[in-house]
Amino acid sequence: MSRMADTWILAAQCSSRLGTVDVVTRFLKEQQCYITELNSFDDRLSERFFIRAEFRPELDDFCGETFHDAFASRAAEFAMKFELTPPGKRTGTVILVSKADHCLNDLLYRYRIGQLPLDIRAVVSNHPDLEPLAAWHGLPFHYLPVTPETKAQQEAQIQKVIESTGAELVILARYMQVLSPAMCERLAGRAINIHHSLLPGFKGAKPYHQAYEKGVKLVGASAHYINNDLDEGPIIAQGVESVDHAHYPEDLVAKGRDIECLTLARGVSYHLERRVFLHGGRTVVLGN
Amino acid sequence: MSRMADTWILAAQCSSRLGTVDVVTRFLKEQQCYITELNSFDDRLSERFFIRAEFRPELDDFCGETFHDAFASRAAEFAMKFELTPPGKRTGTVILVSKADHCLNDLLYRYRIGQLPLDIRAVVSNHPDLEPLAAWHGLPFHYLPVTPETKAQQEAQIQKVIESTGAELVILARYMQVLSPAMCERLAGRAINIHHSLLPGFKGAKPYHQAYEKGVKLVGASAHYINNDLDEGPIIAQGVESVDHAHYPEDLVAKGRDIECLTLARGVSYHLERRVFLHGGRTVVLGN
Amino acid sequence: MSRMADTWILAAQCSSRLGTVDVVTRFLKEQQCYITELNSFDDRLSERFFIRAEFRPELDDFCGETFHDAFASRAAEFAMKFELTPPGKRTGTVILVSKADHCLNDLLYRYRIGQLPLDIRAVVSNHPDLEPLAAWHGLPFHYLPVTPETKAQQEAQIQKVIESTGAELVILARYMQVLSPAMCERLAGRAINIHHSLLPGFKGAKPYHQAYEKGVKLVGASAHYINNDLDEGPIIAQGVESVDHAHYPEDLVAKGRDIECLTLARGVSYHLERRVFLHGGRTVVLGN
Amino acid sequence: MSRMADTWILAAQCSSRLGTVDVVTRFLKEQQCYITELNSFDDRLSERFFIRAEFRPELDDFCGETFHDAFASRAAEFAMKFELTPPGKRTGTVILVSKADHCLNDLLYRYRIGQLPLDIRAVVSNHPDLEPLAAWHGLPFHYLPVTPETKAQQEAQIQKVIESTGAELVILARYMQVLSPAMCERLAGRAINIHHSLLPGFKGAKPYHQAYEKGVKLVGASAHYINNDLDEGPIIAQGVESVDHAHYPEDLVAKGRDIECLTLARGVSYHLERRVFLHGGRTVVLGN
Repeated sequence: MSRMADTWILAAQCSSRLGTVDVVTRFLKEQQCYITELNSFDDRLSERFFIRAEFRPELDDFCGETFHDAFASRAAEFAMKFELTPPGKRTGTVILVSKADHCLNDLLYRYRIGQLPLDIRAVVSNHPDLEPLAAWHGLPFHYLPVTPETKAQQEAQIQKVIESTGAELVILARYMQVLSPAMCERLAGRAINIHHSLLPGFKGAKPYHQAYEKGVKLVGASAHYINNDLDEGPIIAQGVESVDHAHYPEDLVAKGRDIECLTLARGVSYHLERRVFLHGGRTVVLGN
Repeated sequence: MSRMADTWILAAQCSSRLGTVDVVTRFLKEQQCYITELNSFDDRLSERFFIRAEFRPELDDFCGETFHDAFASRAAEFAMKFELTPPGKRTGTVILVSKADHCLNDLLYRYRIGQLPLDIRAVVSNHPDLEPLAAWHGLPFHYLPVTPETKAQQEAQIQKVIESTGAELVILARYMQVLSPAMCERLAGRAINIHHSLLPGFKGAKPYHQAYEKGVKLVGASAHYINNDLDEGPIIAQGVESVDHAHYPEDLVAKGRDIECLTLARGVSYHLERRVFLHGGRTVVLGN
Repeated sequence: MSRMADTWILAAQCSSRLGTVDVVTRFLKEQQCYITELNSFDDRLSERFFIRAEFRPELDDFCGETFHDAFASRAAEFAMKFELTPPGKRTGTVILVSKADHCLNDLLYRYRIGQLPLDIRAVVSNHPDLEPLAAWHGLPFHYLPVTPETKAQQEAQIQKVIESTGAELVILARYMQVLSPAMCERLAGRAINIHHSLLPGFKGAKPYHQAYEKGVKLVGASAHYINNDLDEGPIIAQGVESVDHAHYPEDLVAKGRDIECLTLARGVSYHLERRVFLHGGRTVVLGN
Repeated sequence: MSRMADTWILAAQCSSRLGTVDVVTRFLKEQQCYITELNSFDDRLSERFFIRAEFRPELDDFCGETFHDAFASRAAEFAMKFELTPPGKRTGTVILVSKADHCLNDLLYRYRIGQLPLDIRAVVSNHPDLEPLAAWHGLPFHYLPVTPETKAQQEAQIQKVIESTGAELVILARYMQVLSPAMCERLAGRAINIHHSLLPGFKGAKPYHQAYEKGVKLVGASAHYINNDLDEGPIIAQGVESVDHAHYPEDLVAKGRDIECLTLARGVSYHLERRVFLHGGRTVVLGN
């Protein structure tokens, strides 16, 4: 038996106010839903409340839709945003890549063995290189090259893939293009990027060369939601690996691959399990 | 503002049953207590429920005692064991040591700067060596030597220190004596030990020599509640450090010190914050 | 430029004795070989000397064979065992698997992008399941089922694959069969296995269930050379991941997969780079 | 027996050139010095060579001074900078602090138990608060308050303490003053600072508040040599700790303390063991 095999997830957030927990837990009790895991956090500084409940309905005739609508009227009083997720839900997803395949290979492996509850609808790339990898996993591959001149059209094509497949999530698995502000806006809160994280933070080109020059002893990666500041959106997960002086820039890049794969998979997993709450420029990740 | 500066903690456990969350959260709402952090877990395999709530009373005339008694009558229906802890509560503690001082030094530092909400009532040792360290922190030190013949009496003396000071917690900070089963029994659930954890597990004497012979690449430590099997009680926290072939047994021991300090401090911290629930041979640690 | 793109490796070991370093470094100087990285370690407890040098020949007419033979006569005086490895050497390898594919998938990915200098000659399994994965990477797959009755013949078949392909290395990437003592003997020092490492060490069946019962907070893995004690051979690399009470046995298994992949890849990488020296029941790993 | 109890250390660096290793190892052989550990690295990008040898003289009449002078004439040919360090050498050290005592407490503990081969000559602070801690360890304490107007004089006083005590190393253990460029210059390569390292890097005031706003999942620390850019000098060691959304800025600060202590101690330890080679803006750390 694994952790969430047969549980529904209710995830919600609203402004801080007395009764926010009670409105959720009382309703679950009334509906005879058995809570297997519950986490809430109230952020004093931003005065924002976040809650996530995993539960098993005890009634045979439990209906998600009925539950959803009934809870909506309760939640309204608190202006609570919420999402109800059934057990076994596989989130429709489009993955964007360029040429580097380490993150894609890792995600597709986890997808294939059922470790990540994704329903991958398409792989999109501005290069044709990764088509065979997608094909081996039986996934549609869209080769959408881009130049500065065609950027707007290409993004429109990507958007069309996302919409036509009904994807709810977009993963930028080393997609080496900066998305336009408009595209970022459209994907706010539902597009996850992976980015190297180096200490200290290096701006500009060739970050691994800069890191080498500085003699860093750690390389890291951050999985984050994209926003207008592509590599600086709200952080979901971070990881690091040790390195030393004998790592030339190319070796740092290689070392970065492992930690990018692991950190992206972790961030995506938290998102799929509805653990991640986005509020302003930061996230709250419950029960990870 | 730090995390728990002004919050009460309600921690409870009982058998799994519909309504266990609701009985807690509904009561908190009725009492106008604002929940800042809430975590519950229902263990399917052991069919046991655990919950921990941090909350701020909103009423000026909130009285912990009244709250406690009123909740007790609700909890009774679920045969729920619970504990209510006020903000700023400093847990009365006795620390047992032998000659090694690394864990004691670390604990006393954290105690002195207020990082661990301890009220250290006494330091007890079977050797006189650490008396100056205790004295510098203004702590009573009891030198209680022990031989195989005097073990029963010495344990009775330790027990007397614990009782006379009203200590609720005992920390074995590298106390190199095996406690008698009777003593373990008396301290069940309120005595935390730190023990090396090596991969693979080595039995018998000179574990670091065995680890060297095996060429281990990691050394670790476990903080755990003591039970009859002194070094194998329910685990609260674990940590590891990397080592290599150039670490002779004595170097492994030195490396182990850091991870022992950190892991013991972490385990004690979880206990003091009422995050640790003991059930059978294992623990549940909520919201760490 | 990556670390070892154009360097030869000389790796040697012998009994401790004055002049062991000098015999190597003086020869390299005489041969006008430029040492880019050098590591030696003399183990006092076992009185054994280990050395590894990466170097670039400065002469255009450098000949590995000549170098090897000339050095052999010097090394003879110290009864030094040594190995000379040219740049870009890809070690002939056979991979053994059963049904679980996480380690195989990870190894084949690293192989495909050239991160591990392997020359994979065959994948062998006692189950047919992983044939498509091997096929996609263009690798021969040998399905060699085994029963208690046919174990000796099946091992002979495996041995034949190893010999006929000239493989120097065997990787047991979650091969769930215990090899016979004779097979272990034949593969001594050139077969790497990956095994879970749990704290404390659990013996017997269903280790992850035992770990759950104990409430472990870490799960780990060890990459090691096989010997007669299959899961307890000399350790090459070890890794750990954090877990908590909410990880049921199946979740622990899932968590173990990532750390198994990473640790096996690290162990194999050290072996391929001739960093690992086996002596008695332990290893020395130089310059990792 | 610990690792370096009776070994001398020879550490050297020079420009890359054929024969740099040989000049060291041949000399050690001639002097009948037994090398227990040897590490060299040749940095291709900066074309710089670094070597560190631990060795035991086999002759009873070994004289460090004679060795030093004789080697100097060999090393001259390579314009090699080198340092010879006898076994048991305790490096004269001055520690600078302000009010925060976590790093000082940790260093003094390691000093007291002999884990760090320091000879602490004085503790200097711009605040009187840590005098009792220094006194308990029997160390001279200099209270040297500073204002913008008196900065030059105060630094002169610090310099006088360093010189009059013959200290070779200065540790800035949370000394919250920016040193003048002239002072940095004077202490180049022999003053180690500890600084938080956050991902992404935050500039300006209140870095932990910025980290909270960003929702970081890791906090880190770097031990580095100071240079004109106080918090950005060549890195010796780095470490990280996990955090989450429930860490308010003050909690991040508390979490940072542990990793600052450990990372500073590690950096100082590498320096004292003559593992750290400074070249340009980066370090090479051999055999750690």
